[in-house]
Amino acid sequence: MFTTERYIERRKKLLQMMAGETALILGERLVPRNYAANTFSFRQSSHFLYLVGLNLPDMALLLQDGQYTLFGEEPSMDDIVWTGPLPSLAELGQTVGLDKVKPLSELPAILRKSQNNLHYLPPFQGEQLLWLSAMLEKSPAEVASGYSKKLAKALVDLRVIKDDAEIKEMQAAHKISVEAYNAMAMAIAPGKSEYDILAVLNGIMAKHAAEHSFSPIVSVHGEVMHNITYKNSLKEGQLLLIDSGAESKECYASDITRTFPVSGKFTAKQKEIYDIVHRAQTKAINTVAVGVENLTVHLAASLEIAKGLTELGLMKGNPEEAVKAGAHALFLPHGIGHMLGLDVHDMEDLGDLVGYPEGEPRSSQFGLNCLRLKRELAAGWTLTIEPGIYFIPELIKMWEGEKRHADFINYAKLHDYLDFGGIRLEDDILVTDKGPVIIGGQMPIASQAVEEWMQGKIKAN
Amino acid sequence: MFTTERYIERRKKLLQMMAGETALILGERLVPRNYAANTFSFRQSSHFLYLVGLNLPDMALLLQDGQYTLFGEEPSMDDIVWTGPLPSLAELGQTVGLDKVKPLSELPAILRKSQNNLHYLPPFQGEQLLWLSAMLEKSPAEVASGYSKKLAKALVDLRVIKDDAEIKEMQAAHKISVEAYNAMAMAIAPGKSEYDILAVLNGIMAKHAAEHSFSPIVSVHGEVMHNITYKNSLKEGQLLLIDSGAESKECYASDITRTFPVSGKFTAKQKEIYDIVHRAQTKAINTVAVGVENLTVHLAASLEIAKGLTELGLMKGNPEEAVKAGAHALFLPHGIGHMLGLDVHDMEDLGDLVGYPEGEPRSSQFGLNCLRLKRELAAGWTLTIEPGIYFIPELIKMWEGEKRHADFINYAKLHDYLDFGGIRLEDDILVTDKGPVIIGGQMPIASQAVEEWMQGKIKAN
Repeated sequence: MFTTERYIERRKKLLQMMAGETALILGERLVPRNYAANTFSFRQSSHFLYLVGLNLPDMALLLQDGQYTLFGEEPSMDDIVWTGPLPSLAELGQTVGLDKVKPLSELPAILRKSQNNLHYLPPFQGEQLLWLSAMLEKSPAEVASGYSKKLAKALVDLRVIKDDAEIKEMQAAHKISVEAYNAMAMAIAPGKSEYDILAVLNGIMAKHAAEHSFSPIVSVHGEVMHNITYKNSLKEGQLLLIDSGAESKECYASDITRTFPVSGKFTAKQKEIYDIVHRAQTKAINTVAVGVENLTVHLAASLEIAKGLTELGLMKGNPEEAVKAGAHALFLPHGIGHMLGLDVHDMEDLGDLVGYPEGEPRSSQFGLNCLRLKRELAAGWTLTIEPGIYFIPELIKMWEGEKRHADFINYAKLHDYLDFGGIRLEDDILVTDKGPVIIGGQMPIASQAVEEWMQGKIKAN
Repeated sequence: MFTTERYIERRKKLLQMMAGETALILGERLVPRNYAANTFSFRQSSHFLYLVGLNLPDMALLLQDGQYTLFGEEPSMDDIVWTGPLPSLAELGQTVGLDKVKPLSELPAILRKSQNNLHYLPPFQGEQLLWLSAMLEKSPAEVASGYSKKLAKALVDLRVIKDDAEIKEMQAAHKISVEAYNAMAMAIAPGKSEYDILAVLNGIMAKHAAEHSFSPIVSVHGEVMHNITYKNSLKEGQLLLIDSGAESKECYASDITRTFPVSGKFTAKQKEIYDIVHRAQTKAINTVAVGVENLTVHLAASLEIAKGLTELGLMKGNPEEAVKAGAHALFLPHGIGHMLGLDVHDMEDLGDLVGYPEGEPRSSQFGLNCLRLKRELAAGWTLTIEPGIYFIPELIKMWEGEKRHADFINYAKLHDYLDFGGIRLEDDILVTDKGPVIIGGQMPIASQAVEEWMQGKIKAN
């Protein structure tokens, strides 16, 4: 955990932002998997972790009359028999500087009394929505729509700038990823399965007592954006895309993607595409600066991709115009990256408040509609940079059928790439006044370096 | 997946049991972890798996007018880009013998029209409860209480007896556990951590593309019943209790417990307690027979434990009377086992319908109140047998302070066991007309065999 002072400091800032208001920060509950007693592993609310740091279910923080109160259950003898000795609620509160504690049973009446000016965050999970709905005696729909934009905005403003202790946590998460990618790079070989590589990853995660920050992608079908099945075997000549991240002790995320040639060496055709993605990633990272819109970063990478594909003859015409029209999104249907922190898409539970200027809707253009972060970058922000080039057969066929962007796309030549797969390269970036910093340092990324990495000649560190 | 015929057969039986009724079997949805797009790994409803076999979110099976209809979403181009090519709903239905399919969007109106005689199962998870609540336009509380006991009872009657294909699945799950326990037995050593051993387990689970059937216990504090933290290091002289299970391809569970001496050899004191647990487990398994109440099995193991502890001088007086009074529950505060199948506690989402005669409440006696399965055993049932002896310092101190069962418990001598920990031994049993069968065969269990297992002299197979 962070120091007690840090939690006190964070809460003090929130108190100033919410002066005179009543605000509830509700923790999460255990989520049943097959039945009530068989649950998914517990994941605390990131907002609650940020302000309170206690990684336990069934807790709440209430700000009222300028004071904070921690609500929770006292451990019963049953709890002790089933889950081991536990500190009292007062002891828990003291570890994070919360002197005022109350039993959870008192919370509903307090909330109902103040519900006309109660601020709470949008519950994104069923268990929490039902909990709040029961406490407030309001329908889930009313509760879901009645959340406080002011409180959500305050949390965004607090959490978006990472302090030194948070950066250290993200470096710690990155360190686990380094060990995992070192091991996976050496383990990839024809004849193995995606699951074999996942097994290497899972073993290292367990060794570090770390949860995945999201369901990892370990796939020879990198062209499927969020492929979380692992049943394919690895074949000579294929690419293996691995997108995975770890959570540090305090639940900060890493999020790294590398794409490997299964045989240990890229084919000439693969290398051509790979090097474009690498150039686009380098370009994007170098575009990151305080005051630059992340849309600019996205477009810089997009242009690099359009230029590269035009040189290869897969696109045609003027690359700038192609990007403007959105033609390149056939190959890059997602955004350049997202905010990173206690959540791998940091604060995505608060919608686009973190990524877009207030009230500004997302573009409706295919590809840009998936850009999660558009805002002007500021010092202390942490985000991912993850361009990719994908050959999605179904999408190519659909666009070709519609003759969509036929001025910019050479569909005839694309037919040779229908079984190519996809390539993505991703690093985690800290924005500073002096420019972008790759959190934890960059793992091998140039095509030749990746080949040497797989041979054990070099290691990430 | 099982054969199409098997799913058709199961649904035919349900149709007969629910003749003339309208019944909904709702699948599960993805559950958000940090935010909507970051979810826990998907776990389909076991009831839906049993009747339909499709392991995909957002589906429902409706029985109406003597006919089954499968409801689901047609894959969109977005789905294809993000999660890969998907079959159509009609194709999915055909694989499991369901010719009638309809879009999910038509389900709410159909349900509301028939809601006065709609049978549905109790939703145990927030997302499903909210889904049903929204479709029926009823409050979550109304929906939760309005489930159909008739339908729940029908599912219990169908699922409680396992057919050959199901037993094969449970053997497959057991086989993964065998590989995991073989590897873990060899990996345990002083200086390693609980997480190191979990890493071995997780690696093998991933290699087999298997999910844990429940959060595994890998703990030097075996006296904590459901300890799912793994942060302790393993020390010479300690015991390591491992309780874990795998899910087969069709999501059937294994559930195995072994307790290992960290140093590779039990101390004399540990061996005394271990051998009592082993005798109790053997006794319990041998008591399993068609027509025998599982309470009898529980009491047989309990008596063996009371006898053993009386011989050791930790208990005193008449062991039969001690068990009757519930004094032994200080050492065995849980039940002898539970039903096993598609859920590790099979059908526990339906409450005690599976474990107790209809309407019969659980005993209020400490220990017996945790007996999940009391009913008379029948051929084709599958269940766990898992006695244990635990020294729970807080519980011992509480009972001693109250002088509870002081006629049967030698508290003075117990003071030497406060740091002993706990031992549990568990196997999965199929009840047959010819007696009990250990599913997949028994892994090494006698104290000496466990030591040889850790040395690599023998292997489970």
